[in-house]
Amino acid sequence: MSNTHAIKHRIEIEASPEQLYAAISQQQGLAAWWTPMVEAEPELGSVARFRFGDGKHGPDMRIDTLEPGAAVGWHCVDGPWKGMDMRFEIAAHERGSVLRFTHDGWPEADDFYMHCNAKWGFFLAVSLKGYLECGEGAPHPRDPSI
Amino acid sequence: MSNTHAIKHRIEIEASPEQLYAAISQQQGLAAWWTPMVEAEPELGSVARFRFGDGKHGPDMRIDTLEPGAAVGWHCVDGPWKGMDMRFEIAAHERGSVLRFTHDGWPEADDFYMHCNAKWGFFLAVSLKGYLECGEGAPHPRDPSI
Repeated sequence: MSNTHAIKHRIEIEASPEQLYAAISQQQGLAAWWTPMVEAEPELGSVARFRFGDGKHGPDMRIDTLEPGAAVGWHCVDGPWKGMDMRFEIAAHERGSVLRFTHDGWPEADDFYMHCNAKWGFFLAVSLKGYLECGEGAPHPRDPSI
Repeated sequence: MSNTHAIKHRIEIEASPEQLYAAISQQQGLAAWWTPMVEAEPELGSVARFRFGDGKHGPDMRIDTLEPGAAVGWHCVDGPWKGMDMRFEIAAHERGSVLRFTHDGWPEADDFYMHCNAKWGFFLAVSLKGYLECGEGAPHPRDPSI
C-alpha cells in the first residue's frame, strides 16, 4: 500500500453497462457530462485532451484501460493531475449498472484534493447520471463554481 | 495518524461565514439543504436527529463543536455512521466563505464510503450552496438516487 490518498465515488445508474462505458470512452459522451472541450477517441495509448474555463487549461489523459462494458483507465500525462491515475469500473446492477470511480495518487488530502472530490461528485452523481437517465447532463461550465 | 479513511470536500460559497454557520447549526437551515426530517438545536451536547426515506432511518449526531462563524462538529451516536465524526470548518474568503468538510473514521474506503462521499458532494456543492446563494436547496428526497 502506498501512502497516497484517493478520491472514490460509487454511483448507481439506470443505464446498461454498455451505455455507461460509451459515455466514459467516447468523445460524444464525455462532452455531454464532463466538458464539451474534449478531443478523445477510444483507442488504447492515445491521449485524450480535456479543457475547461478559457479552453487553455485541463488534463491530458493517456488511455491505459479499455474493457468494453467493464472499465476505463486514464493516466494523466499533463495538467494539474500529472502522474495521477483515474479508473472507472463498471458492473451490472439490478438498477442497470454501478460505477466505481477512483482518482488515485494524491500525496495529500489538501484543498485541491477536496475541491476535486466535490467536483467529481457533481460530474458523476448529477451530470453523468442525468445524461444517461434523462438525456441531459450538466457538463462544464454548468458545474457549480466551488 | 490513524489508519482510517476520511471523506473531505472543499466548497466556496457566496455567503457570509455567519450565514453558512447558521445553515449548518440551525434546524431551519439543515432542513433546507440536507433533510426536512430533522430535529436539531444549536446547543453543545444535544443530539440532533436526521431521518431519510421512510423517516425511520438516519443518523443521530451529538453536537460537539459550535464555534459561531467558524466550525460545527458532530459525533454520530446512532445510525449507520455510529462512532464517526463530522466537522464543518468555515473561513472567510474573497467570494464570501469557504467550507471544509471532513467525515472521518471510516475503517475502509468501501462501497458505503464511496456512496456517502458522492452524496456529501451533492448536498454540499449543490444543495447547501444553492440554498445559500439562490435561496433554494435540494434536500432529501431531491438528492440523486445513487
